[in-house]
Amino acid sequence: MRSTILIFVSLLLIGLIQFIDIKGTGESGDKGYVIVLHGGAGEMNRNTPDSIKNAYYKSLTEALTIGKKILEEGGTSMDAVEKVINYLEDNPDFNSGKGAVFTAEGTHELDASIMNGRDLSCGAVAGVKHIKNPISLARMVMEKSPHVLFAGEGAERFAEKTGIELVSNDYFHTQQQLKKWEERSKKDKNGTVGCVALDKTGNLKEGTSTGGMSGKMSGRVGDSPLVNAGTYANNNSCAVSCTGWGELFIRNTVAYNISALMEYKNMSLQEAVKYMIHNRLPESSGGLIAVDKNGNYAAEFNTTSMLRGIADSKGKFEIKIWE
Amino acid sequence: MRSTILIFVSLLLIGLIQFIDIKGTGESGDKGYVIVLHGGAGEMNRNTPDSIKNAYYKSLTEALTIGKKILEEGGTSMDAVEKVINYLEDNPDFNSGKGAVFTAEGTHELDASIMNGRDLSCGAVAGVKHIKNPISLARMVMEKSPHVLFAGEGAERFAEKTGIELVSNDYFHTQQQLKKWEERSKKDKNGTVGCVALDKTGNLKEGTSTGGMSGKMSGRVGDSPLVNAGTYANNNSCAVSCTGWGELFIRNTVAYNISALMEYKNMSLQEAVKYMIHNRLPESSGGLIAVDKNGNYAAEFNTTSMLRGIADSKGKFEIKIWE
Repeated sequence: MRSTILIFVSLLLIGLIQFIDIKGTGESGDKGYVIVLHGGAGEMNRNTPDSIKNAYYKSLTEALTIGKKILEEGGTSMDAVEKVINYLEDNPDFNSGKGAVFTAEGTHELDASIMNGRDLSCGAVAGVKHIKNPISLARMVMEKSPHVLFAGEGAERFAEKTGIELVSNDYFHTQQQLKKWEERSKKDKNGTVGCVALDKTGNLKEGTSTGGMSGKMSGRVGDSPLVNAGTYANNNSCAVSCTGWGELFIRNTVAYNISALMEYKNMSLQEAVKYMIHNRLPESSGGLIAVDKNGNYAAEFNTTSMLRGIADSKGKFEIKIWE
Repeated sequence: MRSTILIFVSLLLIGLIQFIDIKGTGESGDKGYVIVLHGGAGEMNRNTPDSIKNAYYKSLTEALTIGKKILEEGGTSMDAVEKVINYLEDNPDFNSGKGAVFTAEGTHELDASIMNGRDLSCGAVAGVKHIKNPISLARMVMEKSPHVLFAGEGAERFAEKTGIELVSNDYFHTQQQLKKWEERSKKDKNGTVGCVALDKTGNLKEGTSTGGMSGKMSGRVGDSPLVNAGTYANNNSCAVSCTGWGELFIRNTVAYNISALMEYKNMSLQEAVKYMIHNRLPESSGGLIAVDKNGNYAAEFNTTSMLRGIADSKGKFEIKIWE
C-alpha cells in the first residue's frame, strides 16, 4: 500500500515537472518559437581554412540573431523569415541576392519564394535580373497581387509598381562567383539561402532565395521559386526550405512530400525528412531545413556540408556546417 | 466427392474465362490502353447554341481520334499526348497555342508542361511569346536539356537551338479571344488543354498547354507549367492534368496530391480525385482528368462544364461537356 502511494506521488511529481517544463518554453502563456536557417548544402571540405569557416559562422550568427530577436519580441514568423533572408541576400558570401552565381551567359537570374502556413498563401519570382532583394518581391507578389508566381520582365514590371528596389545586373557581379564561374565549378552547390520559423502564435512560414545553379542556361527555373518542390509551409504540418540540385527536388516534390508524409502516413517530422533525403533523393543532391507545428525541427542533407543555424525560445542557439 | 470435382471444374472455368477476358483487352499479349483529354473546365451554359457545341464535339473527336490511333498501333503515350495537344494548340477554339487568351497588356504568354511517369522526367516552359506549339518545346526541355523549367526569353533561345517553330506574337491574336478580352470576361475559364494516357507497355504520360488566365498580368505563371501543381505523372500511381484557377491548384498541390493520396492513403483514383475536387478546392475553381496504372480513369470538375473525351482499347469512345 505504502509503495502504491509512493508510485502515485512520483507520477504526480513527474507530471508537474513536465508541466513546468512546457510552460517554460514561452513567456506569459505564449507558446515558444523556433527558427532554422540554411545557407546552402554543398561539398565544403572539412579542411577549409579557418578564415573562411569563421566568416560563415559570423554571417550565420548575425542572420540568426536578427530572426531570433524578431520572434523573441513577439514579431511574426513572416517578418523573421524575410529579414533573415534579406541579410543573407545582401551578404556576398551566399548564392542569393548580391552573391548570386553567374548563368552560362555571364549574367545573373534570381529566384525566390515565400509561403504562409496559415492559409497556404504564397508568392514567388523567377528569373529576375534587377531585384536587390527577391524575397521581398516574393512577399509583395503574395500580399499585393492575385497571382502566385511571376517570371522575368513581368516580375520586374510588378516590382516597379510596388516600390521594391531595382539595381543594375552588374550589382550581382562578385569576385567570388566570377572565379567559380570561370573555373566552371560544378561541385560547389553551396549558397541558396532559406529560413523556416514558428512564431509564438503558432504560425509557420518559410522563405527561400537563390541565384540558382552556377552556369545554368538563361531562363532555367529551379525548385526555389516553386511551392511544393523546393518550398512549402502549412500550419497543419510543417514549413520546409530546400537547397541542392533543383531538378531532382522538383521531380520528387520534396518540400510538399514532407508535409504529405506527416499528414497522410503519420510520420514524425524527423522520419519524413530522413526518408526524403536518404531514401528518395540520390546521394549528393542536397538538403533541407524544416520545423513542424509543435516546434520540432530538422536539418538533414546528403552532401558533405550544409551551412545552417537553429535558435529557439528555450535558449538553444547553434550554428553548424558539417556533422 | 462428385460435388468437390464439380466445384474444382467450375473454378477452373471461371479462371479460364477471366484469363480470356484479360487477354481480350489488348492484342497479342499486350495490355490495354486508355487516353483521356480535356479542353478546359468552365461555365459553359447548357443552352449554348448547337453550332458552338457541335464545333467543340467535332474538335474533341478529332483530337481523341489522333491519340487513339497512335496507342492502337502500339505508339507511346508520350507521342499520343504530344500529338493530341498539338492538334488542340493549332485549333483556335481552345485557350492554348493559336487560341491563347490575351494578357492585361493585350499580348499572349503561353505555358506548357509534359511528364513521363516511368522516370519522373519532365519538361516545362512558362511565359513564351513566340512558340507555335509550347507542348513540343516542353518535350524538348525534358529530352534535350539538363533542366526542367525554362521561362520567358531563355525558353525561346533554347527553342531556337532545337529547331522548334517560332511565330510572331500576332499569330495568337484571334477574334474569339479578343472579344472576351474586350469584355473582360472573368467567368469563362474554358480552354486550357490537357491529355493523360496509359500505353500498351504500361507507361503513364501527361501534358498540359495553356494561354493562362484571361487578362492575367504579364509575367504571371499559373499551374499548367508547374509539375506537382497542375500536372503530374508517375507509373506507380497515376497521370493527372488540371484546368482552372491556377493559383488555387498551386496552393493545394492538386496534381501531386492525387498520386500521394493513392500511394500514402491507399485511396482509389476516383476517391482521390473526388476528394481533391469537392473537398479541398472551393466551388467553381476547375477540374482535372486522370488515369491510373491499372487503366482506371477519372474526369471531375466543380464548374458547370468541362470539355473532355475518353477512349480505350475496349472500344469506349466518349465526348462530353456537362454531367
